[in-house]
Amino acid sequence: MECCILNIGYEILQGRVINTNGAYLARRLTILGHEVKVILSVGDNIEDLYKALKLCLDTFDCDLIITTGGLGPTPDDITLEAIARYFSLPLETHPQALREIEEKYKSKGMELTEERIKMARMPRGAIPLRNPVGIAPGMMLRIIHNNRERLVISLPGVPKEMEAMFTLHIEPLLRGSKRLIEAEILVTPGIESEIAPVIEQMIRLHPNVYIKSHPEGSELSEPRLRIYVSLYDQDQERGVTLCNNVLKEIVTNISMRCKAEIEILKPCSVS
Amino acid sequence: MECCILNIGYEILQGRVINTNGAYLARRLTILGHEVKVILSVGDNIEDLYKALKLCLDTFDCDLIITTGGLGPTPDDITLEAIARYFSLPLETHPQALREIEEKYKSKGMELTEERIKMARMPRGAIPLRNPVGIAPGMMLRIIHNNRERLVISLPGVPKEMEAMFTLHIEPLLRGSKRLIEAEILVTPGIESEIAPVIEQMIRLHPNVYIKSHPEGSELSEPRLRIYVSLYDQDQERGVTLCNNVLKEIVTNISMRCKAEIEILKPCSVS
Repeated sequence: MECCILNIGYEILQGRVINTNGAYLARRLTILGHEVKVILSVGDNIEDLYKALKLCLDTFDCDLIITTGGLGPTPDDITLEAIARYFSLPLETHPQALREIEEKYKSKGMELTEERIKMARMPRGAIPLRNPVGIAPGMMLRIIHNNRERLVISLPGVPKEMEAMFTLHIEPLLRGSKRLIEAEILVTPGIESEIAPVIEQMIRLHPNVYIKSHPEGSELSEPRLRIYVSLYDQDQERGVTLCNNVLKEIVTNISMRCKAEIEILKPCSVS
Repeated sequence: MECCILNIGYEILQGRVINTNGAYLARRLTILGHEVKVILSVGDNIEDLYKALKLCLDTFDCDLIITTGGLGPTPDDITLEAIARYFSLPLETHPQALREIEEKYKSKGMELTEERIKMARMPRGAIPLRNPVGIAPGMMLRIIHNNRERLVISLPGVPKEMEAMFTLHIEPLLRGSKRLIEAEILVTPGIESEIAPVIEQMIRLHPNVYIKSHPEGSELSEPRLRIYVSLYDQDQERGVTLCNNVLKEIVTNISMRCKAEIEILKPCSVS
């Protein structure tokens, strides 16, 4: 599926928090065989969230949107309200979500308050996702938008909660038969502009393999180049063989072009 | 200014790299008194970059766009091509950029190649930004778009290069008279749903102060709440006094509502 990741919160926009949630979800979705088209952060306000949802669902036309953040009890937690508005759905207190929230607070001798009940309010048709770490439930909504089914998943912004809920509820749902096979090498000295023609040729020869160079250090004083190779295959053995062949070709072609040391950082393997 | 940060590269979308460039720029821009509206990552392809630029320049109507990544010598480095196309500007080899690139390679006994010359190709009207760490120059483009002047700045994706260039070229340009004053406290135990009414009341009382709670740990087993307070003021002393007053009010109101320990993580100070 083509996916958008939407990480909500001013703390990201103010640079007080590094968006590790975006990276976590991007990595998991990639391993599960899906393509992340956009990672987007906006603040906790309805208007900006609406624009972000429009980018994900209309401009990039993604099948799967995963949001993080904005599910808590404070007034600026407005993710589900924004999603409900976007799809013109009413926001309703979900009985199952409310029951779970109530039980959690009860177990600590705490009562339900308006702020706590708020966390159970979801767009009509949403399925609440139990939070095994914290309190605020997540939600999952399947909905037809522009004649195609979309899946919208909302998870909390606290990384421990988000990761536990992704593993528990979402990963089993999104696991397909494709497996990701990856490898990485380090070329020293590795001048990107010198090795660019090799990479270009390899990309042409292997259109189904992703090959990308990343310069490290300073290109002039201590040039190093990471080269990353990845592909998907249902047949793991066949995939690893192809990966190894491509890697060998890259190493041979670089050695023919320049004198460099090549270190294998990660041998071809299934992720 | 209202800003968008656009971090380009499949390595971000695949979760192989955490977008620290986004957080760095967001933090610097916030300290300099600007408002980041969106942080966005898309892959190295013209079509997606075009959509991202449209979001920044039209949907969010930002004054300043800073891009990172996609300035290197490989064929998938297409940031400046995408910007040129977006504004219908021709892409031209910039003599000054080319001279700097040539000198850098010459100093290492290396010749110009097509891949290396490519890094000097910029939209017409752009000003190249010297890269004191690596080779690929950045660029700055002032352009009228929808009847308003916009500033588009492109920096490399390698963090060391990006940070050096931001500090050297961009920070002096964007520094205004406003100063950011910040403070942070930790409330233990801190149950967000319990403290939410205090925060809500404080936000109402101090509309020019940014007050935000962030739950940490698990809300039920080891609930802690960070409360962040920030404001801008040209007069540092006045700003710090206001910040201290707000902080005191928050502490008093929390203490009246529940029994909790309050630790000052960061006293009110100028950032």
